[in-house]
Order: sequence, then structure tokens, then C-alpha cells
Amino acid sequence: MPTVVVSVENSPHKLLNPVPIENVRLNDAFWAPRLRMLVRVTLPSQYKLLEETGRLDNFKRAAGKIRGPFKGLVFNDSDVYKWVEAASFALAYERDEEVERLADAAVKDVVEAQDADGYLNTYFTFEQKKERWSNLRDLHEMYCAGHLFQAAVARHRATGKRDLLEAAVKFADHIYGVFGPDRREGVDGHPEVEMALVELYRETGKREYLELAQIFVERRGRGLIGGSPYHLDHTPFKQMQELVGHAVRALYLCCGAADVYMENGDPELRVALERLWQDLVERKMYVTGGVGSRHEGEAIGEAYELPNERAYAETCAAVANVMWNWRMLLMTGEARFADVMELALYNGALAGISLSGDLYFYVNPLADRGKHRRQPWFECACCPPNIARLIAYVPGMIYTTSERGVWIHLYAASTARINVHGGSVELTQRTKYPWSGFVEIEVKPQGIDEFSIFVRIPGWTRDSKVEVNGERVEGVHPGSYAEVRRRWREGDLLRIGFDMGPMLLESHPHVTCNTGRVALRYGPLIYCLEQVDNPDHDVWNLAVVPGTLKAEYRVDLLGGVTVVKGKAWAMDTGAWKGKLYARLGEVEAKYCKTDFTAIPYYAWANREPGPMIVWVRKAGSEK
Amino acid sequence: MPTVVVSVENSPHKLLNPVPIENVRLNDAFWAPRLRMLVRVTLPSQYKLLEETGRLDNFKRAAGKIRGPFKGLVFNDSDVYKWVEAASFALAYERDEEVERLADAAVKDVVEAQDADGYLNTYFTFEQKKERWSNLRDLHEMYCAGHLFQAAVARHRATGKRDLLEAAVKFADHIYGVFGPDRREGVDGHPEVEMALVELYRETGKREYLELAQIFVERRGRGLIGGSPYHLDHTPFKQMQELVGHAVRALYLCCGAADVYMENGDPELRVALERLWQDLVERKMYVTGGVGSRHEGEAIGEAYELPNERAYAETCAAVANVMWNWRMLLMTGEARFADVMELALYNGALAGISLSGDLYFYVNPLADRGKHRRQPWFECACCPPNIARLIAYVPGMIYTTSERGVWIHLYAASTARINVHGGSVELTQRTKYPWSGFVEIEVKPQGIDEFSIFVRIPGWTRDSKVEVNGERVEGVHPGSYAEVRRRWREGDLLRIGFDMGPMLLESHPHVTCNTGRVALRYGPLIYCLEQVDNPDHDVWNLAVVPGTLKAEYRVDLLGGVTVVKGKAWAMDTGAWKGKLYARLGEVEAKYCKTDFTAIPYYAWANREPGPMIVWVRKAGSEK
Repeated sequence: MPTVVVSVENSPHKLLNPVPIENVRLNDAFWAPRLRMLVRVTLPSQYKLLEETGRLDNFKRAAGKIRGPFKGLVFNDSDVYKWVEAASFALAYERDEEVERLADAAVKDVVEAQDADGYLNTYFTFEQKKERWSNLRDLHEMYCAGHLFQAAVARHRATGKRDLLEAAVKFADHIYGVFGPDRREGVDGHPEVEMALVELYRETGKREYLELAQIFVERRGRGLIGGSPYHLDHTPFKQMQELVGHAVRALYLCCGAADVYMENGDPELRVALERLWQDLVERKMYVTGGVGSRHEGEAIGEAYELPNERAYAETCAAVANVMWNWRMLLMTGEARFADVMELALYNGALAGISLSGDLYFYVNPLADRGKHRRQPWFECACCPPNIARLIAYVPGMIYTTSERGVWIHLYAASTARINVHGGSVELTQRTKYPWSGFVEIEVKPQGIDEFSIFVRIPGWTRDSKVEVNGERVEGVHPGSYAEVRRRWREGDLLRIGFDMGPMLLESHPHVTCNTGRVALRYGPLIYCLEQVDNPDHDVWNLAVVPGTLKAEYRVDLLGGVTVVKGKAWAMDTGAWKGKLYARLGEVEAKYCKTDFTAIPYYAWANREPGPMIVWVRKAGSEK
Repeated sequence: MPTVVVSVENSPHKLLNPVPIENVRLNDAFWAPRLRMLVRVTLPSQYKLLEETGRLDNFKRAAGKIRGPFKGLVFNDSDVYKWVEAASFALAYERDEEVERLADAAVKDVVEAQDADGYLNTYFTFEQKKERWSNLRDLHEMYCAGHLFQAAVARHRATGKRDLLEAAVKFADHIYGVFGPDRREGVDGHPEVEMALVELYRETGKREYLELAQIFVERRGRGLIGGSPYHLDHTPFKQMQELVGHAVRALYLCCGAADVYMENGDPELRVALERLWQDLVERKMYVTGGVGSRHEGEAIGEAYELPNERAYAETCAAVANVMWNWRMLLMTGEARFADVMELALYNGALAGISLSGDLYFYVNPLADRGKHRRQPWFECACCPPNIARLIAYVPGMIYTTSERGVWIHLYAASTARINVHGGSVELTQRTKYPWSGFVEIEVKPQGIDEFSIFVRIPGWTRDSKVEVNGERVEGVHPGSYAEVRRRWREGDLLRIGFDMGPMLLESHPHVTCNTGRVALRYGPLIYCLEQVDNPDHDVWNLAVVPGTLKAEYRVDLLGGVTVVKGKAWAMDTGAWKGKLYARLGEVEAKYCKTDFTAIPYYAWANREPGPMIVWVRKAGSEK
């Protein structure tokens, strides 16, 4: 049973087909340790918190096994489901008795909490039973159902166990009975069930679920749940001109619409997805791939509204951004989607979990004074299991196949066995990516002859080179896939070189908060200046001197990272003491030249607190 | 009966004593038309809305005169009270039969709605009666009471009518009975009643009200209402190190504490007020005098957190900033408080009302793309009557007296009769302020001989000159009062010249949103660039060239304003199309030199919609 992250094998409107997680074995210094940590630290510690916070008890209570009140927020079931999904994908990558035992226990609790009629939500039990489906806008019933379906599909794919899948099918049938065609017109306040229903359809073959997903995408924007942008109910999806509203809701809806499109090929869906993607990427996305400019309503902001200190950039929104771009990539094979997927994965999303694997950010500012710190859990704990499932997806997002051959999307030292063209090929990546742009891929075909290997050339590269057995491949352009087609022979060697040199980025002039500021990029990684590495000057007072950057690998630091060093002018803000505004030139700040060290953004806030900044001032006329 | 704005005549810990509104007659082109508009347009149109929205009906309903449900928000009574306060101060300045009739009608409704036991709040009637004082944190009962007291005091001072004052006294006695010393420990979730109780004490001489005000200031920070910064309940007032929480709540509390201090002289209150004022003015105030950086919680932000597009800067907070600084000024006679008062009055607050006098801003961004427009009313309509009462205060905030003589705080062509030293003096200001920095003041003393005239030299001036009968006065420094002491004779002429020349301001380097940006100031006014005056280039794309500014009075524009013109580089952002981030230098924007025109910030959004910006880019190396 192949454990793919989104199963589009039989989907008519996709180009690419994911390679199952179990076929990939990482041996790199970046993802392999994170997958190990996921199983050893993150999943067990999260399970403990699911227990301690009553989330698992809610299921036991609903099953009549224990007494007492429902605990926590109305959508707390979803945290358990997301955890089960994460555990399942993790188990596909690496069997672990303890995690398997915990997952089985959680699933047992879930299954036993289901009503005879298929309904399953632990809040709507006992005295709350009469409230079922009474407030679709606010109470997250289908949102929770969606996470149940995703967990069930993941568990079935990863372990072959049907227990949760059967519960999911019963509940989905129940929902179809209530909200299916010609039944009650309802739609949930939090998109999520759409993509889940499509996957449940793919797993079971029951077309009703696809039908239902399509209905739920199309029922939005008709005011059934109040008509607010927050709930993505302001406009029918196909007519949405801009990506607005609650960031996670918006991006989950786009995931669902993409999944529906891959099945039904509705051109209007495709056009809307493209329009919304462009709106996001060209106007509303943080340089980290994070999304959501406003604390108020956890919302996507206006075009170019990208505040740094007050960025919301919820971890879940970055996870959703990866998920959406993964689907767009499967649909099209276009490298721009892989670029955003990689960006959000390595930066906006990964910043959401500590290096220790058990502390989390919900909100991800791009500048801070040292107050914002990771937490072990949240009352609304959507982010911790979301980042867990994302890390579990990673081995499944490195490769895909198409009719023409094998596609490489992410680089990481690894070995993969990939079925293609009725035969298979073993690819062995040797690389220190993301710390080095040199990748060597050994190709071992079995039972196939001519096929293509599509090599992703990231959009951030300036100069890239691809060679096969020492011979240069033509047609290598940043932001595209270089197709290398040949009769591959065992031992063929593909050598790829990306220019990883650290670079400075600037923003569209209408991102007013970034005027006169630059961000640092090294390969797929966005950097930040953290106080602990720059003890002599407040990092907010530094102005980077262009042309002075150099990268340096530091094995001892933050689990091993490449730092970016350079020269900066440090402003002494002492002359500003007691002043907030002054006549231009009235305050003469002094400057001195200094060195700075920047670290990857994902790694910030893992040491002592202090100021941090991504968009650092660019040196101008300081002296 | 003198209609003073804050009656501190008998307050032991004040320095200055306001001059009654009725003693001042404006004949300038700035405030006189606004006071006329207040009476002719603003107050009648607001009354109509109080009627149409059910705010007055709520009182009739409570009195049993009509039936039906309570309408609107729980604190809607306060809008009626603020309107009555505004109308009363306006009537002190200029009798107007229509406004007087409306005020009498409103007061009749209010008085008749009062319970026999003195309780008065139209929400807590009939079935809600049992909820009285049950949720002090959220339900604004004392907040409404405070506005009642302020209205009652204003009405009594302005018209001599005791009807509302008697109702206020009855309600205040009721509150004293419930929450007085040794009674129930409660404090309201929204400060306001504190300053109102002190004024009610000053008006009636009943010390219980002062006692109660003091108790309410001191009861904060003990968790009686949940302990949140939003409700200013996180720390006892005297221990507050920083100004945080809901902006209007915070500033109203400071007003109350200042009023209490002027009565009891508690040095800890004084120290706390100073600390919080410095925190505001040195770290948290917009260049317009606006306050409140966050939509979320309508909150004051962190130090230097001053976003422009997403500034909240509620009109009410700017009004409260004026009110607080007026009290600090009365307390101390220090010019820095007059500077902030003038700044918030002419900019942050005045922007809250249209030139037509009947449209309002609740939120006052410092940059916009053209979507933010003034509205005739709001569901939560705190701002419209608040800006109305502030305009009505203006004639009462121009002058004060102290033991040494007369103080001039604001400049406006006007005549005032000021009682001082047992005699009086008539001062006639001839000036085009705020469009000109030249002020001529004719002095006509009656029955007094030697006394001082304290001439405010605003902090924003570079070069100022004061002459008496052509003789230069020494000791004239920006940000202070120049004391001119002499035996004044009828016909003595005081000539004051401020350098009004337009200037550029910059921000503390930690205001990261203003990096590379400057604001324009001309005299007391902050300017903005609005699209309609700059048709050739998006004003967000302009970069002002320092040293090119000049002022030009335009009688035809926006009711007559001085515009600031200058040179700018206009960026053609076309090269950025489709890009949000780029490698530094990758996108080569083209620039061309152009002229720009800026208008006073208070006057924006009175013509066709379009982009607006206060903190405009400063030209650097464009070519």
C-alpha cells in the first residue's frame, strides 16, 4: 500500500504522481535528524499533551468510558486527528513501536466514540447532541471531520489498518446524507473537509465524497454562513479575485479546490486557483513563505501589507502554503510551485518548531525585541500537530513521476526506489543541501531504458550547472525543471551545481515596512540576525553593507548551520534618547563599522532571548 | 457661571486656571468656522442619528414612554451624554435656539429614564435590571455614568440648568452607596468615571465623589475585573511602568488620575503620570498625536510599534490625548504638554471629522490606498460625539491664568476678556495661525497693573521672536513659555513671530516602518500627500527631495489651507510588476523628477478617493 502524500495516481487532471514515503530513505544532516526527532520527541511529547489536556479524554467521555465535562475548545478533536495523521506518515517512513502503540490507542479511542449513525465529534455529545450541525459557521464540525478523514487515509496508506478508515467512511456517509445533493445546503466555517473528502474518495473510490467536496467548494460565497471574508464566504470560489480572509481557511480552501480540480478538470477552478496563487505570491506572502499579515482575524492583509514585528504568519498558514503548492505542483509540474513549497517549508513553516522538537510558534514575526518565545503547547493547539504532519510529509515530497520520467523537487542526501515506466530506478542523492549547492545523483535503472529525469533548478539560483557523466546539459534555467532524457545506465552520474552564494533581497516598493531594508538569502533559506550572535550592537541598529556577504558552515551551531557573515554599519541610537521624532538631520547618530552574523530564520529563538530581525537596514550613506 | 473646560479653580495642585469659553470670541478662519459648523451641522445631524438609531428611544423606553427592545450596544447611552456635553460647551460659546431645544429634549429624556434610587442606564432596565453591576468588566455601566456626569457638569456650567446635574448627583450618590469606601470592591472595565467624578466634585463640592474617583484609580491592577492590560487592570496605576492596553481606556485613566492628583497631590500619582506620559510621547505616539498602533484590542502597541497603513489611532484616543495633556498643562504649566495637546488637536483628532462636519473616521491610518473613507456614523459611535465635544472645548483651551498672569496656549485670531489679579485684561489676537507664524496681540488691562503674559513658544519652532511695542523680549526658547512681565497699558502690542517654514521629520530608528521615510510639518500641522493633488504619480512612489519645500496658501482648497510643495523623485514601479521580492539591484526601477503637493493631514479624504501617505520616502540616490 503506497503511502503517498496526496494520491493522484488516477486523477485525470494531474501531471505528476508522488513517490511513496516508504520508498525514500534520507541520510542527510537536515531532514533525517528531524524525522528521527519527530518520532522520538515530537510525537510522544504531543501525545502526552493530548492526554494531559483532555483531548483524548474527550473521546473516552463520548464513548461513555469516563465521565466529566468536555474539555477545551470545540475543535479539539482535530488536534488528535492531525497527530494520528502525522504519526501515520512518520510510521510509513520509520516503524517505531512506541508511536505505533500510541497511534493505535488514539485510534481506538476515536473509533469507540463514534455514534451508531456515523456521527463523530466529541463536543456534540450528551447535552450538546441537539446542537449538531446547528452552527456550521463557528463550530468546526466539518473541519474536524476533514482532519479525521485525512488521518484515516494516512493510517490506511501507512499501516494498512482499516479501523479509522471505516469510521471515516461512516461519518462521510452520514455527512453526505445531511449535506449531499438535494439535501440541506450547508458549508463549514473553516475549509478543510474539501481536500479530505477528495482524498477519501481516492482511497475508497466512493464518488459521493468527490461530489460532496465539489459541492462544498462551490457553496461558498452564497451567504450560507454569513458571507464574511473571514469564513471565505464573501464570494463564490471561482469568482474570487483576491486571496483574503483568515489565512489558514483561505489556503485550506485552495488545497481543496486544487484537489477537486485534479479530479474534475473544471477550467474555472483552475483559473481561480491561478489568480489567487498570483495574488498571494506577488502581493501577500512573506519572504519566508509565511502568510497572514494581521493578528486581527488571523487574516491575510491587503496587497503589500506585510508588517514585520506584527506579522501573524501562523505556522499553520505556512504549512497550508506548502500543502497548496504541493498540489499545484502535482497538477502542473511547474517549478514556480516547487519554489514556493520549498520556501514555505524551510522557512515559514519550519520556524514553527524548536530545534528540540517540543516547543512551537503559533505566530511567526519577522522582527522581534526578544519577547516572542516558543511554547510547549497552546490552548488552540492547531500548529504543533500541523508542523508535525508536515515534517512527516517531507520524504514523500522529494520525488514524483510523470509519463516522461522522474522528477526531483527537493534536494537531500537520500536513496529512493522509484517505480516508473513499468520498471524502477534507484536514485542516490549525495549532497550537503541546503548548506551546499552541489548535488550528485547516482542513477540505477532496473527494467527501463529511456526516460527523463527532471531536475528542479530553483528560482533563487543565478547560475546552475547540470552534468551527466561529466557532460554538460543544455537548457538549464532558474525557476524551471531541466529535463535530462537518455537511456540511463546503472552508475550514470548526474551532477548538479547551484550557485548558493548568499544574496540580499529587496521588496516591492509598496511594501512600505521594508523601505531601505534587505533580507538575506542563502539557497532556499531566509536568514535573520539574532542578538546572541551579534553581542556588540543591537541587531535592529545594524545596516548591512552590500557586497560583503560570505557563508560559513558552523558544525557546532544550532545543530549545524551555514551562517552568513558580512560587514555592517552599527548605529549608536544614544543620540535619539528621549526622542521619537526629530527634524531631519537634527539628531546626528554615530556609526561604526562592525561584522555581523546571520542565522537561518527557522533556527531563531532557540537560544537566549534578544532582538531578531529579517529585514535589516541596508547601508546607505553612513560613515 | 463660568464654563471652563476642567474647573480647577479650587484645586490645590494645579498651576493654571482655564478661562471660560464665554469669555473668548474667535474670529479666525480656522476654528471660528469649525465652531459655527459644529452648531449648524455637526450637532443637529448627530442628534438626528441619535434619534434614528434608537439611542434616544432607549431613554424613552426606560421611562416607560415607548415600548420595544433596547436598541444597539450596551454603552449607547454614552453617545447621548457626549452629545449633550458637546452641545453644552457649544452653547456656552454661541447660543443657538435649535441646539438648545435639542439639548433640552435629550436631557428631558435622560432625566425621565432615571430610577427612583438614582440608577440610570437604559440597558439595565426591565428584564435586564437584575444584571446591574453584575459585569463591571464588560458592560460599561460606570463608563456611561461618567459621560452622564461630564454632560451634567457641562450643562450646568454652560446654561445654569440643574436638571441633568441633579440626575447626575443622584446617580453618583447611588454609585457611592454601592462602591464607596467599605462597600463592594468594584471598578469599571472602561475608565472614564474617574475624571467625571472629580469634575462632579468640583461642581457640587461633594467630597464623596472625589473619594470615589480616587478609589477607582487605585482599585485597578488588583484583578477585580480580570487583570488584563486591555482593561488597565494588570497593574495598580501608580506602579504602571508603561502605557499599554486599550488606547482610549489608558488615556482616560490618565485623565482621571491627573484630575485626582490636582485635588489630592499624591506624589506617587504624579510620578506615574510623568512616567506614562514619557512612555507615550517618547515611544508610542504617532507623529499626528494619534495613539493606538493595533486594530487588535484597539491597543497601544509596543515601544516604537507604529505601523502606518494599519495604524488604529482611533479618533477617540487622539481626543483623549488632548484631554490628558490639557490636564497635565493645567497641573504644571509646562509647554511640552501644550505641544502634544496642540499636535493631537490639529492632526490626530481633527482628522476624525470631515470638512463638511458630518462624516467621521473611527480609525486614522497614516497611509492608505484609497479604501478608507469617512462614515456618517458607526454602530459603536463613540468617535463622532467625542470629536464634537473636543471642538466645543477649543475656545476654552486657548488661555489660562495663574497667580503671575495670563497664559497663551493656542494661537487663533480672537478676542478674550480674562479675569486676573482682581482685574481683567482684554487680549485681541490678530493672526492667520496656523497658516502664518505671525501673531499680534493687543493688550487692554482693566484694573490691574503689573502682571505677566506667558507666551507659548511651540517646541516645533526653530527661530521665534517676541516683541512688546517693538522691543525684543529675551528668553524666548522653543518648547517653553516666554514670560513677559510688565506694567501693561492699554494699547500695548505683543508681536510674536514663529518660524513656520515647512520641515521634514524623521523617526527614531526603531520605528522600523519609517526607515528611509520623512514626514512633513508646517507649524502645528502634519502633512500628507494625497493622490488627488498629485495626479501624475502614485504618491506611494514619490521620494521627497530635502531642501526643496515651500509653503503656499491656497484660499480655494479644502476651506483654505497652506499646501507644502516641493520636488520629488517618482519611481516607476512597472519594472516590479509581478514581483514581490527580488535580488537587490535585479529590478531597475526608473525615476523621474517631479513636483509634489502636500496637504494638512486633518484635511485628507475630503475629495475623491486615492492613495495617501504621511511618511513619504526620502530621496536618496535616485536618478
